[in-house]
Amino acid sequence: MNGQARLIGVDWGTSNLRVMRIAAGGAVLDSRSDPRGAGGLTPDQFRPVLEQVAGDWLNQGLPVLVSGMAGARGKWREMAYLPCPAGVPDLATAVASPDDAPYVVIVPGVALFEDGRLKDVMRGEETQVVSLDVSQDAVVVGPGTHSKWIRTADGRIMDFRTFMTGELFAAIRQGTILGADMGEPGADDAAFAAGVDRALHDTAITAALFSVRVEGLAGRLSPAWAADYLSGLLIGAEVVAQIDAKDRPVILIGAPALCRRYADALKQGGFHDVRTADSAVATAGGLWRIHEALRR
Amino acid sequence: MNGQARLIGVDWGTSNLRVMRIAAGGAVLDSRSDPRGAGGLTPDQFRPVLEQVAGDWLNQGLPVLVSGMAGARGKWREMAYLPCPAGVPDLATAVASPDDAPYVVIVPGVALFEDGRLKDVMRGEETQVVSLDVSQDAVVVGPGTHSKWIRTADGRIMDFRTFMTGELFAAIRQGTILGADMGEPGADDAAFAAGVDRALHDTAITAALFSVRVEGLAGRLSPAWAADYLSGLLIGAEVVAQIDAKDRPVILIGAPALCRRYADALKQGGFHDVRTADSAVATAGGLWRIHEALRR
Repeated sequence: MNGQARLIGVDWGTSNLRVMRIAAGGAVLDSRSDPRGAGGLTPDQFRPVLEQVAGDWLNQGLPVLVSGMAGARGKWREMAYLPCPAGVPDLATAVASPDDAPYVVIVPGVALFEDGRLKDVMRGEETQVVSLDVSQDAVVVGPGTHSKWIRTADGRIMDFRTFMTGELFAAIRQGTILGADMGEPGADDAAFAAGVDRALHDTAITAALFSVRVEGLAGRLSPAWAADYLSGLLIGAEVVAQIDAKDRPVILIGAPALCRRYADALKQGGFHDVRTADSAVATAGGLWRIHEALRR
Repeated sequence: MNGQARLIGVDWGTSNLRVMRIAAGGAVLDSRSDPRGAGGLTPDQFRPVLEQVAGDWLNQGLPVLVSGMAGARGKWREMAYLPCPAGVPDLATAVASPDDAPYVVIVPGVALFEDGRLKDVMRGEETQVVSLDVSQDAVVVGPGTHSKWIRTADGRIMDFRTFMTGELFAAIRQGTILGADMGEPGADDAAFAAGVDRALHDTAITAALFSVRVEGLAGRLSPAWAADYLSGLLIGAEVVAQIDAKDRPVILIGAPALCRRYADALKQGGFHDVRTADSAVATAGGLWRIHEALRR
C-alpha cells in the first residue's frame, strides 16, 4: 500500500490485540494481530507485549494511540468513562498516557448516565463510531460478545445499549439442554430467519428460547440447524428491542459473516437502510480523527 | 402417619426419583428419594432401579402410578403428549404400562398445540396441577430449571408456557463475565427486588442482563449480591411476560425457598392472590386422583 505511516494505532480488545501503521487520513498501511488481549494482562505487561509485537514500528518516533480495554480498571491505566454525548473533540480532551510509556496515548471509553446513574459502558466502539461520515442521525451496531447499539447525531454518540448476545449464545450452547448436539451457526439461513421471526413476534425471550427444544421434539429442527435458530432468536431479540429506530440508517461494524446475519435480521425487522463497515478500517479511521484533534 | 397404603406413587424427574406410599385421598405415608433421575437412565434400567429403591413396597400388590420423565422419548416407555385442555379424566384415559413391568402405569405429559403445531410440553407438572382444588380460573407456577406457568380452568390445564429461568441462571453464572465472583443466591432480598424491578420496567432482558456488570462497575452491587440481582432479573422477566394474569389466583408448587422468591416477585408485579403448595404433596394428590379415575 502507498503512503507514509503517520500514526501507530492500537486496538486492544479483551481477547485480541491489533497494531496498525496508519497513513494520513486513516488508511491502514500494515497490521499485526496477537492473541494477548487485555483480559489476561496485568498493568505491567502491556508495554512489553506492545514492544514485542511492534517494537520496530514504535522505534520510528510516531505517535501511538490506543483504544479498547487497555484503559479498563486494573489494566494499563484506568481511564474514566467519558459521558454521552461524546464526539471526537470530547475524546481528544480526555486522553492520557500510562506511567510506564509516556509516548503512548489511551482513548477513554464512553458511558451512558441517566439521572446521574451509570447505565451502560463501552470501550473501543466509541473510536469506531467517530470514524463514520454519517450526516443523518444513525444507529451504529457492533455485533459480538457484547453487542452495542449506538445512536449517533452530528457525529457524536448520544445514547447506547449493550446486549449480551454473543456471550449468552455461547453460555446457552455450552451450559443448557438446548446445546445438546448443537452444531456451529452459519450454515442454515432459513433456520436463522425462523429464529429472528420468532423473536420479533415473541418478546419473552427466556420463554422463546425453550422453542429450540420444542422445535426439536416436534421434528421441525435438526440438531445441526438448532445453532442457527438460536442465533436468530438472540439477534432477533436485539432487533425487536430497537425497533423504534427502524427508519434510521444502520451501520454495522464487525466480522463480515456476523454483519451479514445482522443485516438479514434487521431487514426482517423492517430496517431498510443497512450498511456495513470493516472493523479495523473503522478503528484506524477513528484513531486518526482523534489524533488530528490532539494536534490542534 | 396413620392410614393404610393404597397406591405407590412415583415421581421420576430428570435428576431425581421419589417413591411414595400413598393413602386413600392422596396423603403421603412414607417417601424415599434416589439420585438416579430419568435423565441418566436407559429404558432397561428403570425397572431394576425402582425395585432397588422400593422393592419391599412393590411386593405388596399395590397399584404403581408413575409421573414425570419416565414417559419421555428414549426412557422407560415413550408416552405421547396429551393435548390441552387436559384434566384428570383425560390423563387417566391415556396411561400405559412399560413392556417389562405390566404392574406399572405411566401418566403421559401434556402438550400445547396451536393451529396443529406443537408449542410447548410438560412432564410431571400436569399431575401436580390436577391435585389442586381451585374453583376459579387460576395460574399454577412450577419454578425451577424450566419454570412452567400453567393456566387452569375447571380443574383442567388450558394453556401453559415454559421459561428457561433456572437453566439460564446456571449457564449465565458459569459461562459469562456476569458470573465472575458471583455467590449463591438467597442472601439478599433487596438485591433480588432490584432485579425484579428492573425486569418489570425493562423487557429487553438480554440487554437488562448487562446491568449486572454495570451495577458492579458503578459500585452499587457487591459480587455477593450479584447472584440475587441476576435471579431477580430472570424471575422478573417471567412475571412481566405473564402480567395480564395478575388478577388470577396463583398457586406456586416447588421448593419453599424458591417459592418465597417467586411470591415476592409476583407481589412486586401486582399479583395479589399468591398461595404455595408442597411439591410432593401435590404429586401424590394428583396421582391419587388419576388412580381413582382409573378404577371407575
